[in-house]
Amino acid sequence: MPAAIMPPGAAVAPARAAGARDRGAPGSRPDVIVAGAGVIGLGVAWRARLRGLTVTVVDPAPGSGASWTAAGMLAPLSELRYGEQPLLALNMASAQRYPTFVAELERSSGTEVGYLRCGTLVAAWDSADMAGLRDIHGFARSLGLRTELLTRRELRARVPASASGLAGALSAPDDHQIDNRLLHGALLRACVAEGVTLLPAAARRWLLRGDRVVGLGLADGTELTAPVVVLACGAWSGQIDGLPPGVLPAVRPVKGQTLRLRTVGPPLLTCVLRGTVRGHPVYLVPRADGRIVVGASSEEAGFDLRPRAGAVYELLRDAQALVPGVGEAELEEVSTGLRPASPDNAPLIGPSRIPGLLLAVGHYRNGVLLTPVTADAIAGLLADGALPDEAAAFTPARFDHAGNRATEGRVADDQAVENRPTREDVR
Amino acid sequence: MPAAIMPPGAAVAPARAAGARDRGAPGSRPDVIVAGAGVIGLGVAWRARLRGLTVTVVDPAPGSGASWTAAGMLAPLSELRYGEQPLLALNMASAQRYPTFVAELERSSGTEVGYLRCGTLVAAWDSADMAGLRDIHGFARSLGLRTELLTRRELRARVPASASGLAGALSAPDDHQIDNRLLHGALLRACVAEGVTLLPAAARRWLLRGDRVVGLGLADGTELTAPVVVLACGAWSGQIDGLPPGVLPAVRPVKGQTLRLRTVGPPLLTCVLRGTVRGHPVYLVPRADGRIVVGASSEEAGFDLRPRAGAVYELLRDAQALVPGVGEAELEEVSTGLRPASPDNAPLIGPSRIPGLLLAVGHYRNGVLLTPVTADAIAGLLADGALPDEAAAFTPARFDHAGNRATEGRVADDQAVENRPTREDVR
Repeated sequence: MPAAIMPPGAAVAPARAAGARDRGAPGSRPDVIVAGAGVIGLGVAWRARLRGLTVTVVDPAPGSGASWTAAGMLAPLSELRYGEQPLLALNMASAQRYPTFVAELERSSGTEVGYLRCGTLVAAWDSADMAGLRDIHGFARSLGLRTELLTRRELRARVPASASGLAGALSAPDDHQIDNRLLHGALLRACVAEGVTLLPAAARRWLLRGDRVVGLGLADGTELTAPVVVLACGAWSGQIDGLPPGVLPAVRPVKGQTLRLRTVGPPLLTCVLRGTVRGHPVYLVPRADGRIVVGASSEEAGFDLRPRAGAVYELLRDAQALVPGVGEAELEEVSTGLRPASPDNAPLIGPSRIPGLLLAVGHYRNGVLLTPVTADAIAGLLADGALPDEAAAFTPARFDHAGNRATEGRVADDQAVENRPTREDVR
Repeated sequence: MPAAIMPPGAAVAPARAAGARDRGAPGSRPDVIVAGAGVIGLGVAWRARLRGLTVTVVDPAPGSGASWTAAGMLAPLSELRYGEQPLLALNMASAQRYPTFVAELERSSGTEVGYLRCGTLVAAWDSADMAGLRDIHGFARSLGLRTELLTRRELRARVPASASGLAGALSAPDDHQIDNRLLHGALLRACVAEGVTLLPAAARRWLLRGDRVVGLGLADGTELTAPVVVLACGAWSGQIDGLPPGVLPAVRPVKGQTLRLRTVGPPLLTCVLRGTVRGHPVYLVPRADGRIVVGASSEEAGFDLRPRAGAVYELLRDAQALVPGVGEAELEEVSTGLRPASPDNAPLIGPSRIPGLLLAVGHYRNGVLLTPVTADAIAGLLADGALPDEAAAFTPARFDHAGNRATEGRVADDQAVENRPTREDVR
């Protein structure tokens, strides 16, 4: 099955991966170029390197995008949206892979990544919300997932800092969190430790030979070639020039803002708390060091990364509605990033229509959660010539019958997108 | 009259000021040391230098305090508080001095300072606020000050971006603004241009000889001496060790937070707009470059300079209540500073109880407004041996009969002050 969805010549020959774990001579041609050094790109590079491939990662500012702004929730259940059920299996697979992935990464990098198996509570603002949570509870149980309904009193007992008027909560004990910034730093160190080459440069254009991608032209004029290039530039994935139309399904930026608060004294929260306050979703993710990440806005604003005052206001309003005490915390940082959204909100993992180019883009709200499964899927494709079964439903080929509109190969024109701020969750 | 309130030996001999405008040899003993390089300290240094004195200013981080966080309103009328009427004459005197002060400063520094004679509107949230504005209108007219009442429709016509539900406004056409950061930069340049010596060092202790201040001991162990020292360290004025008890009236820090928003396109506002929203005062000060300064919290929090999430929330909430469109602006900066509050909220300008030490502290909400009158008063005292009449009511001697409690010579212990955030205006 996985082999069937691979266009001929899209991946490197598996034979190469069977070779010794040589780093390759300095300056020599790598087996793989990865464009983008966020958590996805670095995850792919690290895992591919562990499979014996030589890898060069190209990024002018590693980890400065969505990997930095994210809150790091690992929440297949509490992040579930109606209509996104196909994603659930992939999200669950990645969540289950996290403990092993983290253990290997902490060993490889020599640093901790702040993986907290703290569980998540979804608070109900009123009785209508509580009814909605009961529906999700039933749905989760039908899938065999662990959830629990908490009364108002049980919620107050578990989270004494929560607001007194909340109607109750849904507990998702298997929805955890990781410190995405520590995760990114550990991936960088692991890549360096394993011999991945990191090139702090901007990719400007695709190098093509016939109908095949053979490398990247960099901003300084350098040309970098390899048998295969993995595209992992998140929302910026459409910004490298020269790809034939239709190769890259539309990936559009969805702006998200998160706040970093800092509390002193005893922790306000010991698990992730989220909820919908008068229609506005909000979450609070407490770190081990007393910080709380609050998120997130969801705005169709093109590539505009400026923090919007109204979004900061709404996040603080809704976070205080769930946990009044956050008003006394220090506002340490306002951060904005761009979620890379595909036409169906699911990632694009695997071969593109053009030989020599693999995609690892479009992770939208789930980039941190999906890092292990994406990294292993692409590393498997590179090393074995086949995608693992669990990723088979998420290849870019699913858009091949959708006509040109969905496969224009460019992100949506930000002038054409209505600038209508809405609120939704970001990862 | 001014001479009468001067303790013997408190000022330098006026004879020195009559000398040539020599800069003094490098490293030589200056006529005056100014501790503190905020707008007050630099204003004093510049004007004293123009009177022919050699001046050294000591500050580890010039302009990083309240001068940086302030909004720069020059608003004797709209800033008027019941019980602070004695201040009004001084505030008016300084406001009237501003055009000349700015012209001389721009000439001396070669830079513009963003002095905008834009007027101020005080919006009424509801009919009760409108009744309060009528009272102020009557009071202002009794003092001969220009004010005008605007109906709801007149307010909307003057400020189309204002919220639709506001009840009306009071126009204070003579309450203006200056860009306090440009003002501070210009004062720095003017000081350098005129030959003031700027020493980037922290003052740690007072040097005393007998009952007289003779200089400052710096953090690196250096001792700096001069016939007279002017203390202008704002809220930190009590932090230099070694002054006998009772010399410095209590100056306590009152934390203020301001926001810098940035708008694009046509300006949202063309005059200062302020108001009280459900009991919370808020102001919006539009700069010529499209920025809007929003302020200010008023918190008794000791020397804690961390931005408080709840204060940012309240400022954004109340600013949007007056001008909904600010929600779409970029939140560029959150800034916190400490207002130096004296026991009666009025500044301390003039001789201290100890010879060799002059005070220019305690300006609370009015530091930017009071810079010209304070600078000229202290320069006059230094050069002529006498305070100008307008400053006579604000010498530290007014607390001499108030007993030891008010004159402990130390700021309030921040542990002892109840940490109760309230809202009030900052300058």
